[in-house]
Amino acid sequence: MKTAITELFGIQHPIIQGGMHYVGFAEMAAAVSNAGGLGIITGLTLGTPEKLANEIARCKDMTDKPFGVNLTFLPTVNAPDYPGLVKAIIDGGVKAVETAGNNPAQVLPFFKDAGVKVIHKCTSVRHALKAQSIGCDAVSVDGFECGGHPGEDDVPNFILLPRAADELEIPFVSSGGMADGRSLVASLAMGAEGMNMGTRFIATKEAPVHENVKAAIVAASELDTRLVMRPLRNTERVMTNDAVEELLKIEKEKGADLKFEDIIEQVAGVYPRIMAEGDMDAGAWSCGMVAGLINDIPTCKELIDRIMAEAEEIISKRMSGMLA
Amino acid sequence: MKTAITELFGIQHPIIQGGMHYVGFAEMAAAVSNAGGLGIITGLTLGTPEKLANEIARCKDMTDKPFGVNLTFLPTVNAPDYPGLVKAIIDGGVKAVETAGNNPAQVLPFFKDAGVKVIHKCTSVRHALKAQSIGCDAVSVDGFECGGHPGEDDVPNFILLPRAADELEIPFVSSGGMADGRSLVASLAMGAEGMNMGTRFIATKEAPVHENVKAAIVAASELDTRLVMRPLRNTERVMTNDAVEELLKIEKEKGADLKFEDIIEQVAGVYPRIMAEGDMDAGAWSCGMVAGLINDIPTCKELIDRIMAEAEEIISKRMSGMLA
Repeated sequence: MKTAITELFGIQHPIIQGGMHYVGFAEMAAAVSNAGGLGIITGLTLGTPEKLANEIARCKDMTDKPFGVNLTFLPTVNAPDYPGLVKAIIDGGVKAVETAGNNPAQVLPFFKDAGVKVIHKCTSVRHALKAQSIGCDAVSVDGFECGGHPGEDDVPNFILLPRAADELEIPFVSSGGMADGRSLVASLAMGAEGMNMGTRFIATKEAPVHENVKAAIVAASELDTRLVMRPLRNTERVMTNDAVEELLKIEKEKGADLKFEDIIEQVAGVYPRIMAEGDMDAGAWSCGMVAGLINDIPTCKELIDRIMAEAEEIISKRMSGMLA
Repeated sequence: MKTAITELFGIQHPIIQGGMHYVGFAEMAAAVSNAGGLGIITGLTLGTPEKLANEIARCKDMTDKPFGVNLTFLPTVNAPDYPGLVKAIIDGGVKAVETAGNNPAQVLPFFKDAGVKVIHKCTSVRHALKAQSIGCDAVSVDGFECGGHPGEDDVPNFILLPRAADELEIPFVSSGGMADGRSLVASLAMGAEGMNMGTRFIATKEAPVHENVKAAIVAASELDTRLVMRPLRNTERVMTNDAVEELLKIEKEKGADLKFEDIIEQVAGVYPRIMAEGDMDAGAWSCGMVAGLINDIPTCKELIDRIMAEAEEIISKRMSGMLA
């Protein structure tokens, strides 16, 4: 399949693996890229320029296909060494970056000069237009369904994607709720030029996370995610578990007085324990509602091949048959 | 276009106009049916068997195409004369009924005997499976985006439609967030056999409502709806206005102690004032997030023709072009 996104990133299939904390290591990115999608290393999981440079080198050892790096800009006191991370990306010869969080205007000129294509993750039309105006090459439009941070507008992709299509001139991919060939064709119908998947890629053989995480996704239904931290206006969609239910209890008790410190035990430093050690009740971890559509743990190649075959069948047979 | 839904209801296009309080009069239903969709008279807006029988007769004067009646089952002390309404539908020769609210098991045998096809509105997979098990002919799968009552699960259509497709054997249409040819093709891609539109049909020339209502929909963005009555577990998506903001203020103040009586001024008896008189701040009225995708007031025929032309172009040109 050929779309503006496959052409922009030089990939075979219009499928991007979004940045995921403690999931987006070189093994994940290489597996997706080798399967014809765009794999993404999660910059802040590595944390330092040295470690990121090393991860990029490891990924290059595992694939000769294009891959990217996610760089998330968070409002934080102890900011990571963003200039160093940008340099590691450029020096590593990476040609695709997924930015997320705050506006990436400050780093864009460096990427532009180095010929790095930038796709920015947005949860609203106004943020997507902002990304376009500062020179991003594409945007990833992230609906209310998504795992992680959906923003505070709660607009699902059935509305958000066509709204983005009506407003944007740069290409965009759908993100949030994407699982299969049906998701891809629906996204393309609504004006997207491809799709981004996060949670779906965690439940693959190559995802470098504990088997318990994959099993939890397969076991979950579409009713098993929760929105946490809404009172802090930092809403995150996570898989429910004991820690999350405790967190929600604290949120309810504290009401408008909730402070980050009240829930720090449930959210701070929990990713290594969950993703590496498989301690599934350690805290809140990002997971999309799409878990309800995930029922197996294929290889990335099996997954992507299946998606593309299903998409082609929907277009060539199901849809065309209805028109006949 | 030919799908299981066009065949089930004997209509030209797979588009249904959902029941809408104080909108679904004969003029609305006839306009949609004359345009090749399935128009629906809203039974409870008429209220009595006599008035419904009269409305059905009026609709028959305006169209010789199939149309239906919506029958919503609410938990209420002063229940409408449901047996009388069912009789009016059957005696009126109506061959399609959209049920909503509580399980329609009690009335199904009467409709079955009379050859009336029943499509039940559901906001969850479990309700859809229940509808299938009691013998409904089809279901209308209503996502979190929808105007009116989305239920309490908050599952948007990008997840809910493929989940329904995985579980159901009877055909279903998408509902909630549907506006145009993009919505239709995306729905078909996800396994639906057609789509239901509510809010979009209010903003048509023939909709028998005050011009202020149509103008409010055209003016609204996707950020202008609100969820009210969640504390009562009777969540409703409505257009924001002064009354709704007041209602939300009361909900916040009362917290878990909220009773229906606290907000009765904002929700009881407001529909005639809004829909007929155009008093747009009179209270809370159901409106989908899809208002953000509605920018004009076409005739029903212009709207449906445009949707079908757009859908065919997306399938035959955009999609097929990507595969080429």
